[in-house]
Amino acid sequence: MSDMPTKILLDEKDIPTHWYNVVADLPSPPLPPLGPDGNPVGPEQMLAIFPGNLLEQEMSAERWIAIPEEIREVYRIWRPTPMFRAHRLERALGTPAKIYYKYEGVSPSGSHKPNTAIPQAWYNKQAGVHRLTTETGAGQWGSSLAFAGQMFGVEVRVYMVKISYQQKPFRRSMMQTWGAEVFASPTDMTNAGRAILEKDPNNQGSLGIAISEAVEEAASRSDTNYSLGSVLNHVCLHQTVIGLEAKKQFEKVGDYPDMVFGCCGGGSNFAGVAFPFLADKAAGKNVRLVAVEPTSCPTLTKGVYAYDYGDATGYTPIMKMYTLGHDFMPPGIHAGGLRYHGDSPLVSQLLHEGLIEAVAVPQVATFEAGVQFARAEGIIPAPESCHAVRACIDEALRCKQTGEPKTLFFNLSGHGHFDMASYDRFFAGQLEDFEYPREAIEASLAHLPKVG
Amino acid sequence: MSDMPTKILLDEKDIPTHWYNVVADLPSPPLPPLGPDGNPVGPEQMLAIFPGNLLEQEMSAERWIAIPEEIREVYRIWRPTPMFRAHRLERALGTPAKIYYKYEGVSPSGSHKPNTAIPQAWYNKQAGVHRLTTETGAGQWGSSLAFAGQMFGVEVRVYMVKISYQQKPFRRSMMQTWGAEVFASPTDMTNAGRAILEKDPNNQGSLGIAISEAVEEAASRSDTNYSLGSVLNHVCLHQTVIGLEAKKQFEKVGDYPDMVFGCCGGGSNFAGVAFPFLADKAAGKNVRLVAVEPTSCPTLTKGVYAYDYGDATGYTPIMKMYTLGHDFMPPGIHAGGLRYHGDSPLVSQLLHEGLIEAVAVPQVATFEAGVQFARAEGIIPAPESCHAVRACIDEALRCKQTGEPKTLFFNLSGHGHFDMASYDRFFAGQLEDFEYPREAIEASLAHLPKVG
Repeated sequence: MSDMPTKILLDEKDIPTHWYNVVADLPSPPLPPLGPDGNPVGPEQMLAIFPGNLLEQEMSAERWIAIPEEIREVYRIWRPTPMFRAHRLERALGTPAKIYYKYEGVSPSGSHKPNTAIPQAWYNKQAGVHRLTTETGAGQWGSSLAFAGQMFGVEVRVYMVKISYQQKPFRRSMMQTWGAEVFASPTDMTNAGRAILEKDPNNQGSLGIAISEAVEEAASRSDTNYSLGSVLNHVCLHQTVIGLEAKKQFEKVGDYPDMVFGCCGGGSNFAGVAFPFLADKAAGKNVRLVAVEPTSCPTLTKGVYAYDYGDATGYTPIMKMYTLGHDFMPPGIHAGGLRYHGDSPLVSQLLHEGLIEAVAVPQVATFEAGVQFARAEGIIPAPESCHAVRACIDEALRCKQTGEPKTLFFNLSGHGHFDMASYDRFFAGQLEDFEYPREAIEASLAHLPKVG
Repeated sequence: MSDMPTKILLDEKDIPTHWYNVVADLPSPPLPPLGPDGNPVGPEQMLAIFPGNLLEQEMSAERWIAIPEEIREVYRIWRPTPMFRAHRLERALGTPAKIYYKYEGVSPSGSHKPNTAIPQAWYNKQAGVHRLTTETGAGQWGSSLAFAGQMFGVEVRVYMVKISYQQKPFRRSMMQTWGAEVFASPTDMTNAGRAILEKDPNNQGSLGIAISEAVEEAASRSDTNYSLGSVLNHVCLHQTVIGLEAKKQFEKVGDYPDMVFGCCGGGSNFAGVAFPFLADKAAGKNVRLVAVEPTSCPTLTKGVYAYDYGDATGYTPIMKMYTLGHDFMPPGIHAGGLRYHGDSPLVSQLLHEGLIEAVAVPQVATFEAGVQFARAEGIIPAPESCHAVRACIDEALRCKQTGEPKTLFFNLSGHGHFDMASYDRFFAGQLEDFEYPREAIEASLAHLPKVG
């Protein structure tokens, strides 16, 4: 047996004791979210949908925030997650690069999402709130919050983007197994949903619309809060357990990445894997951090850095971020979790300040990468994760040409067990690469809110 | 953080170096398989479908058989598998029992099956055979062999029981992702399949029929061997990595089980978790080993111990085992992997000699147990695994009544990610408990082959 392990494992004692807050290492402080009047939104307005303890994290500039023991206890169900050295993929590619990946698909819901679902359910319960609404795209977030609610006795209602509800019926069954209610969004249960359906009864939904619905319900019920699976600072914060563990795992094998890749929709997966390395970069270390997005929803690579709504209908505060315009409707690609018009303000700011990079990859090529990965490494990746696989393989192939033995690292954010219908279509040659939707983006960018 | 871990993990160096062969500890030698003439089948006849190196294992009485390094290298993708202490389930049940489970769902195909698929593909390749046929019930075995074939460059063709092919289309996509061909059995590609379809064009298939088809093709092509996912001695042998690791894990926490549970269809899962503990029992240790089967296919609890065919149509040699008769057609329950008329000859002999026990549990109660487990522990179990969960929970509830703090252990053989349609039906109240199918069993037992 070779001395270099295939899996780099940590002990339960190595589950991080603190989350890392990248705000402490930003060159300039983050810009605040603004209300309809153009003034910063105070915590008091946010308390209608979020508990105070989470808002404190949202606003915090502390570098390290302690993880409560009750949360670490639940993390122990699947954390620390394994890191793999992709020996077989390296051989299949014939690259001199070393490839490592961290695998978040070992969580009960099969992705990185429970890293924040668990603390969000727990902090709400601490604040006396026993009911949560949320949205879900591919279903990874909704099932994660369903699981988290079940762990702490918190009721969960999920608005699921209609196209995913149809493409991934078994994600719904999974949420129900964990006791959650699930509806296909847009629904006729909210003003936001009804307004969309009135214009377009066949609307396939989007993350933006589903967010509008979930926020509207939470704001209108005093017993209910809202929970978001990405974008916000406290969500990115919770996900840093990924990168923090990865750094310990690299230390264990005496290596360190030259480049870190994470797929990027709302930004929490990328933040989770990359931010802890950004701390090193801020301290002078040479490491490139690459956010990977779909060419069909190219927020970071083709969007503008501007104030925009987090949802589709203007229900949320406006945030400074890369955006394609809040009413941009992305094509129905199979990586449902990456179909978001905006991006995390923290990820956006870091890109704007040149501390991270972004690339966009087309749909068919991501599935090619996913199949190549599955045939080499065994694990079948989620379509979202295939984006990171694609970008990492592309870099490994560049290394093959240049002969550079770079150390590459990506986060395999989830497995594809609920995405096999998408793989089916790929094998049948039915997947398309969408043209860069320039006109739709230009149209929606014309609707950006005016600030100041 | 409590000192008692949730996950009991081993290092890659702890992957067993040898498989344990229970034949060395049997009170009497196993009875040989017999041919149509009533005489023992010699290895030369078996060589038409199996390689010599695997037949050697099939016949061996050596207690320990070395695991080749190339196989241990692939095992490292997912082994050692974690063992969990089910703290949350214990609390939910209010039982004084301690509950442990080993989780085989972390393998790429999501079950224990790759433990034998990997060595079978490798030994065939060593013997110069680059093409394999097989059958699959729930799809767990077929996807595991597809994965194994991909690891070693061996082509794989899978005959999939028609009812599962329809209920679990995504298992098929998974096999295709790993490059295998898949057909719904009975097919019109074999004599066995055509004979069944002639009598009953809507035949839903069974493991027995699919075995007939795969064996027929392998026997008729010199470039092709057959691979079986359960029943045979060498399959049970390979699965013992489960129990061997479990014993190390119990040692690590200073505990030992009073009872071990495994679901039992063809017997390989039960053998894998239980046989290594049987070695201790043979050495005087007090441990109860319980095979758990469905009441609708009650081979061990209602069958007879007799010589019978391994397949449905009499293509294979006859083996001494518990059987419901080779032409018994089990009801279409959702635990497709447990719908087999016979059982492993080794498991059967151990039951006959009183060294192990068997219980049968009804379908609806197994899903109730699965949901209770998922809500407490997070992981959603496969319907097959739900049988072991049910039996273990039943015992934990008995402990609650008697106050006994027993140590209970079961193997969670796989996850239920491809079985959510079955959970859906359970939630919709559409699952039935089948009556003990006495008449069908009596009819098929009348067709047992005559011996001697």
